[in-house]
Amino acid sequence: MTARTFQATNPATGQPLAPAFDVTTPQELETLVAAARDAARGFASSTPTQRADFLNAAAAGIEARADAFVEAAMAEAGLPEPRLRGEVGRTANQLRLFARVAADGSWVDARIDHGDLARKPVKPDVRSLRVPLGPVAVFGASNFPLAFSVAGGDTASALAAGCPVVVKAHPAHPATSKLAAQAISEAAAGCGLPAGVFGIVYEDGYELGVKLVQHPDIHAVGFTGSRAGGLALVAAAQAREVPIPVYAEMSSVNPSVFTAEALAANGAALAKGLAASISGSGGQLCTQPGLLFVPVSKAGDQFLKDVAAKLDATPACTLLTGGILNAYQVGAARHLGTAGVERLTQGLEPERGAQPQLLSVPIAQFTPKLADEVFGPLSVAVRYDRLAEVTPVLAGLEGQLTATLHATDAELDGLSDLLHVMGVRAGRLVLNGFPTGVEVGHAMVHGGPFPATSDGGRSTSVGSLAITRFTRLRAYQDFPDRALPPELQDANPHGLWRLVDGEQMR
Amino acid sequence: MTARTFQATNPATGQPLAPAFDVTTPQELETLVAAARDAARGFASSTPTQRADFLNAAAAGIEARADAFVEAAMAEAGLPEPRLRGEVGRTANQLRLFARVAADGSWVDARIDHGDLARKPVKPDVRSLRVPLGPVAVFGASNFPLAFSVAGGDTASALAAGCPVVVKAHPAHPATSKLAAQAISEAAAGCGLPAGVFGIVYEDGYELGVKLVQHPDIHAVGFTGSRAGGLALVAAAQAREVPIPVYAEMSSVNPSVFTAEALAANGAALAKGLAASISGSGGQLCTQPGLLFVPVSKAGDQFLKDVAAKLDATPACTLLTGGILNAYQVGAARHLGTAGVERLTQGLEPERGAQPQLLSVPIAQFTPKLADEVFGPLSVAVRYDRLAEVTPVLAGLEGQLTATLHATDAELDGLSDLLHVMGVRAGRLVLNGFPTGVEVGHAMVHGGPFPATSDGGRSTSVGSLAITRFTRLRAYQDFPDRALPPELQDANPHGLWRLVDGEQMR
Repeated sequence: MTARTFQATNPATGQPLAPAFDVTTPQELETLVAAARDAARGFASSTPTQRADFLNAAAAGIEARADAFVEAAMAEAGLPEPRLRGEVGRTANQLRLFARVAADGSWVDARIDHGDLARKPVKPDVRSLRVPLGPVAVFGASNFPLAFSVAGGDTASALAAGCPVVVKAHPAHPATSKLAAQAISEAAAGCGLPAGVFGIVYEDGYELGVKLVQHPDIHAVGFTGSRAGGLALVAAAQAREVPIPVYAEMSSVNPSVFTAEALAANGAALAKGLAASISGSGGQLCTQPGLLFVPVSKAGDQFLKDVAAKLDATPACTLLTGGILNAYQVGAARHLGTAGVERLTQGLEPERGAQPQLLSVPIAQFTPKLADEVFGPLSVAVRYDRLAEVTPVLAGLEGQLTATLHATDAELDGLSDLLHVMGVRAGRLVLNGFPTGVEVGHAMVHGGPFPATSDGGRSTSVGSLAITRFTRLRAYQDFPDRALPPELQDANPHGLWRLVDGEQMR
Repeated sequence: MTARTFQATNPATGQPLAPAFDVTTPQELETLVAAARDAARGFASSTPTQRADFLNAAAAGIEARADAFVEAAMAEAGLPEPRLRGEVGRTANQLRLFARVAADGSWVDARIDHGDLARKPVKPDVRSLRVPLGPVAVFGASNFPLAFSVAGGDTASALAAGCPVVVKAHPAHPATSKLAAQAISEAAAGCGLPAGVFGIVYEDGYELGVKLVQHPDIHAVGFTGSRAGGLALVAAAQAREVPIPVYAEMSSVNPSVFTAEALAANGAALAKGLAASISGSGGQLCTQPGLLFVPVSKAGDQFLKDVAAKLDATPACTLLTGGILNAYQVGAARHLGTAGVERLTQGLEPERGAQPQLLSVPIAQFTPKLADEVFGPLSVAVRYDRLAEVTPVLAGLEGQLTATLHATDAELDGLSDLLHVMGVRAGRLVLNGFPTGVEVGHAMVHGGPFPATSDGGRSTSVGSLAITRFTRLRAYQDFPDRALPPELQDANPHGLWRLVDGEQMR
């Protein structure tokens, strides 16, 4: 029997790309998951240094393949070279951040409550820490073929936590995926880790991915993509005999509010920055500002005119896949057909690609449907008379990854109601900036109330806190020191910050 | 229209108890949830000291009602006075622990990544913390009418996090519930907090509870009880337009392994301790040891004989409700009807109550059905020849709150496989102790892989870590100091431990 194959498509030309990739068979998937399961125990007890070395080696492997990545991803994703060069760096830096987190080790939140034999009843010695869940499935996203894909944040954080990872490669960029997989697998081998700590499956459909989520030896899922895709995985995970968590980052229009004062002070610069934020990477960013609140005023008119002109001067974007382009065209047409909506940009749609679009609607005619995400370089400006009108509209939106306010420093203190609602509706609040460009650090929150993320913003998929998603708690009661994991031993051999009898120390 | 009413039943007599309680109407529920919603913003921004004062006042209010509690709960739950006196103390201590956690404030996990204007592109200033989810629903458990009920750990941790709480009182102990509700509401009023921070609903059925979970202004659910009940709430929460987390602690038989060496060294004392752990509080504890692994040997025979004798000498237990008694009898009969199972205890079942029971089965005839929880004073001893037989049986069990090993210090190093499997299957590992008696502290983990808890042990419902269940993350990007919550301001006015540019400090 010959394996079924598929080919990626160059979105700029519509032509299939060589080589063809074999669709992973169900038997191969079983073998990969079994290897992950068998590797889990040893990987869970690897030292902080071993995991850090592994992640650093993977980062070096990514960088060593930079040219090949850029070539493959330009063909498969239609993204421009500078953007992809930056993404190689971002991906390597992300792996190195998690290497530092793993090396530091304090993320396990080790806690020690000493016992007391004199108390009646005797107080036991109780110690707890976070432990890896076991093998996890990661779904590569289409829009960051490196940084949110095979070697992206989900994979890096799961590996840092000590969980083997089985990636479902995104079918739009199999060659890019394969390069990343090689970098990780080589790093594992170079560090003496079993091959089972990392596996990858290829498929152009959905069956294999669902099988992976349903597999009893898979213990959690990381996903970045469409709302329909994310919800399908959530449903599959909940229908299991043993349900597992799905961390799906799904949908957000990232509302941005501009006050009249802000536009008066800085309108031209804001227009330039906003146009870049709307159309950069073809608008295919989770945090793209797709919904704007702009005052009805001369300054507001000029601002939108400037933004529209910038967008009209922007070359048409090649979108990631034909499916995304189609959904973009359908979504844009639906918005344009909504009562009260007019189009401010003039650019004609190219044959194969997306011309950035700016639409406008009076706030009185705003409907929640206009806050449905249209993935791509489109934004809807909602025109308001008074800021007090904006607050209830924001409060009625679905959960968002981000919410942005452009205001002068002087007016900030008077906007506490608006800021409160932004905080209720979003995971990250941005002041006088643009939501695109998600900084990878310790404080970043890339998550938000449902449906921005499936877990309602209780976790983040970017930044060092992402590591805790793939862990659970375990306590040890009255164990002798030598039978405890090193993180809980009296001598604190890894030098962790720990909560000892309620006091933070190391 | 007169309100529908219900009465609790004294489980010791089967007689209804005065007074009758009005079933909360759907309109009253709406009013309570609206009050919780309206109180949420102010409560979320209350200071650590305000929340601590509130929780300490609630603790004092609980203690001030100690006699009334004991009287009400003895009648409604059939538990003995010393146990209930202890529970009053446990409940007050739990509230005080969360008062300390709230006062300390470091639980918000504040993180600050300073910006860098010199970097290209400019690095933003990003700061994050945990914020309360908003109003949460808490379901009182029947088996701890105080400590896991109206003023129990779920309520205390949610209030400490700054979430208003609406409790669904357990219908088996409405008078006890009302006393606790009064203590909390008085404390709120005394601290100048709005009444909406705490509400309670009464119902002898399930409709109102499901309505509460489905209410769009409820943002999370805490539950301790049966597997069927927990799974029903999980399903209701997932079917919402905006799904919310349900923290349900549901089911566990808490496997305990006894080695031949441990029995040889200490069999008589272990038998005494085990019998108390099996039958204390009528065996109606989440961590009751319902599944034992005992060697086939003279010492093993003697040990089980001793345990059975202790259980036979234990007075019959009044169970919490007629429903629980019925389920106990049905479950015990099902186990006894399983091939290979014999009964080691001799005591006859009393007319109204449960005589503790010890059953035994050869490991070759063990089936997973014998690990289904029978809530009450019953335990199944699985007789093994070699410890190597026990490991795969443990590995095949469903997730557990606890797993216990009784072994000598000398043999511990040779039991790493067994300990590994215990760790995979349970949230808390106990060495040479009994799993009952869940210490309330910072390191306690009361949670475990599904179905022990619905979230697979990623959180705990006992101990200070429980607070994070009712929170999500929020980040602020490039906000001036005065517009940040105090927890993230440069001056650190609350003196929190924070992660600043990756370094733990305060």
